Amino acid sequence: MTHFSFEQLYQFTHKIFLSIGCSDEHATTATKTLLSADIRGIDSHGVARLSGYVRLWEVDRVNANPQIKIVHETPSTAVVDGDAGLGLVVAPFAMQVAIDKAKDVGTGWVSVCNSNHFGIAGYHAMMALQHDMIGMAMTNASALVAPTFAKERMLGTNPIAVAIPANKQPAFVADMATTTAANGKLEILQRKNEDIPLGWAQDKDGIASTDANIIKKQGALLPLGSDREHGAHKGYALGSIVDIFSGILSGGSYGPWVPPFPAYVPMPEYQPGKGLGHFFGAMRIDAFRPADDFKQHMDNWIERFRNAEPAEGYDKVLIPGDPEREMEIIRMKEGIPIVDSVVDDLKKLGEKFSINF
Amino acid sequence: MTHFSFEQLYQFTHKIFLSIGCSDEHATTATKTLLSADIRGIDSHGVARLSGYVRLWEVDRVNANPQIKIVHETPSTAVVDGDAGLGLVVAPFAMQVAIDKAKDVGTGWVSVCNSNHFGIAGYHAMMALQHDMIGMAMTNASALVAPTFAKERMLGTNPIAVAIPANKQPAFVADMATTTAANGKLEILQRKNEDIPLGWAQDKDGIASTDANIIKKQGALLPLGSDREHGAHKGYALGSIVDIFSGILSGGSYGPWVPPFPAYVPMPEYQPGKGLGHFFGAMRIDAFRPADDFKQHMDNWIERFRNAEPAEGYDKVLIPGDPEREMEIIRMKEGIPIVDSVVDDLKKLGEKFSINF
Repeated sequence: MTHFSFEQLYQFTHKIFLSIGCSDEHATTATKTLLSADIRGIDSHGVARLSGYVRLWEVDRVNANPQIKIVHETPSTAVVDGDAGLGLVVAPFAMQVAIDKAKDVGTGWVSVCNSNHFGIAGYHAMMALQHDMIGMAMTNASALVAPTFAKERMLGTNPIAVAIPANKQPAFVADMATTTAANGKLEILQRKNEDIPLGWAQDKDGIASTDANIIKKQGALLPLGSDREHGAHKGYALGSIVDIFSGILSGGSYGPWVPPFPAYVPMPEYQPGKGLGHFFGAMRIDAFRPADDFKQHMDNWIERFRNAEPAEGYDKVLIPGDPEREMEIIRMKEGIPIVDSVVDDLKKLGEKFSINF
Repeated sequence: MTHFSFEQLYQFTHKIFLSIGCSDEHATTATKTLLSADIRGIDSHGVARLSGYVRLWEVDRVNANPQIKIVHETPSTAVVDGDAGLGLVVAPFAMQVAIDKAKDVGTGWVSVCNSNHFGIAGYHAMMALQHDMIGMAMTNASALVAPTFAKERMLGTNPIAVAIPANKQPAFVADMATTTAANGKLEILQRKNEDIPLGWAQDKDGIASTDANIIKKQGALLPLGSDREHGAHKGYALGSIVDIFSGILSGGSYGPWVPPFPAYVPMPEYQPGKGLGHFFGAMRIDAFRPADDFKQHMDNWIERFRNAEPAEGYDKVLIPGDPEREMEIIRMKEGIPIVDSVVDDLKKLGEKFSINF
């Protein structure tokens, strides 16, 4: 484990994106988007994925110079074709379209096809906050999750993020995979050689498993809820809604046919649409009520929930976004810890482009 | 248990709503909305609640002749004040506003204050289907759910419904409480004198409980995910989003201050807004891509998921909405079973207004 400053990671990542042929503007956007994960403590979605994005570029699945275009629109909606660009660049473009439409007609809703992985959903949703808007972001992803009663992997971890502004209180920011546990949590336990809790994953026959490596053995992650008795059909429905809004509304791919992130995994033979899909929303607060009123009530809501009486054995009740914001303060001060395997990976990546890490 | 035809329940319920002073139009809307729950097998939200609505009217918490009004709007949004009307009437009004806005500008989003319980969320979301739109409905409700790490009840079971049209396949209809289990499921086990599974509820100190009566002993339902390790913070975030969209965007009440459904429970002293809140959305499919294309891909999606290989011990994989639709077919043919306690309750209700049940 080594600590790096945000600035160090920024300079390196930016140079890598320039090296694969991104414009300065796109490299800047991609770097900010990617590193927002490291800053907020979601290590699985940050710089650890940089070499993965480069490998997708190497096999021509990522276009470093995309012509991102609106291909259809109404006053409150748009479909964006990402031209196989980095999701890290396509997503902020599309979210901006949603925000612009919300300025005009109250809300904006943008479905995106022909994209790639977009980093953390929360980053895009949070773009709305500075405009006194509620932001939403979701994406489909390559299939790792089995629907309730199924043994097959049919859905990605399909996250949903919602960011809601407050006044004196920090914003409410929920950013969640629609699975019981994100894949990154399994990876942490793999490294420690520990079991995973029952309810996170199942084996290739659909039987619940505690093996942290079960996904590598044709197992599957479980939808939020874990099993039918505990509401897994709801997590399955949520992941499906994300898939349909992101993949089918846009003309992207969906379900088991979403392109895989690892470049060595072959593309599915059948492709019902183009690339990964995302879905973004922006709602102007004052399209409903004066923003100041709303934000004062959000403060009231947050303060009341933060002061809810803790259950036996717990200190305090958290508001969605609290852990990530606390992590951001620490990491901007103390640096961002990167595990050795990722440091090695980044060094090798640097050598490829003669950039020192 | 006695079976009643839909027509029998319809005539009775309609007369009751007329008796409390609803217009014929409102009584018809309220009856259709309420009984949609019984038809779809969600017995806890149907005619079993009729006497509860009447009791709210008796204590002046429900206005049988509301002037339901749009109090603010933009091309894609509106806020509706339900004038303390039955949610069963206010909700279809507001959903229609969302649909009309979607016709004009692609999508419509309506937040509602000053309402009451609106029956099942799925009914309202499904109103969009006939217009080739995606429909969404959610509502806050009186607090029964403890946030992760809390012992206090702060949120309602706050359901989310999403209805998505297909072509040859029936529509995808998800309708879910944002808790692990709906309260109705606890009531079924109470009647059987059985324990509830661990993960559904906790006691007044925040300790997990298997007592089916624990809610009556100051316990709380748990958010979808059950505990932190299994993602309960996600269910808590989802329930919170529903609360904020429904209660705060509209100027309604929210969190622990949402008015209680049982008329004998006093109103909270502090009221940050007016009545229950709902939130509705409608998205015109062809605001994104041609509706026929979309619906053919939905067929493809549904067929692929329905044919996913079942896990060991299961017959088949379901699509959200399958169980309710199958139930509807059975109940329209064989009648709707009503448990004895509800039959007695309806008889007493009928006597009050000299209506034979």
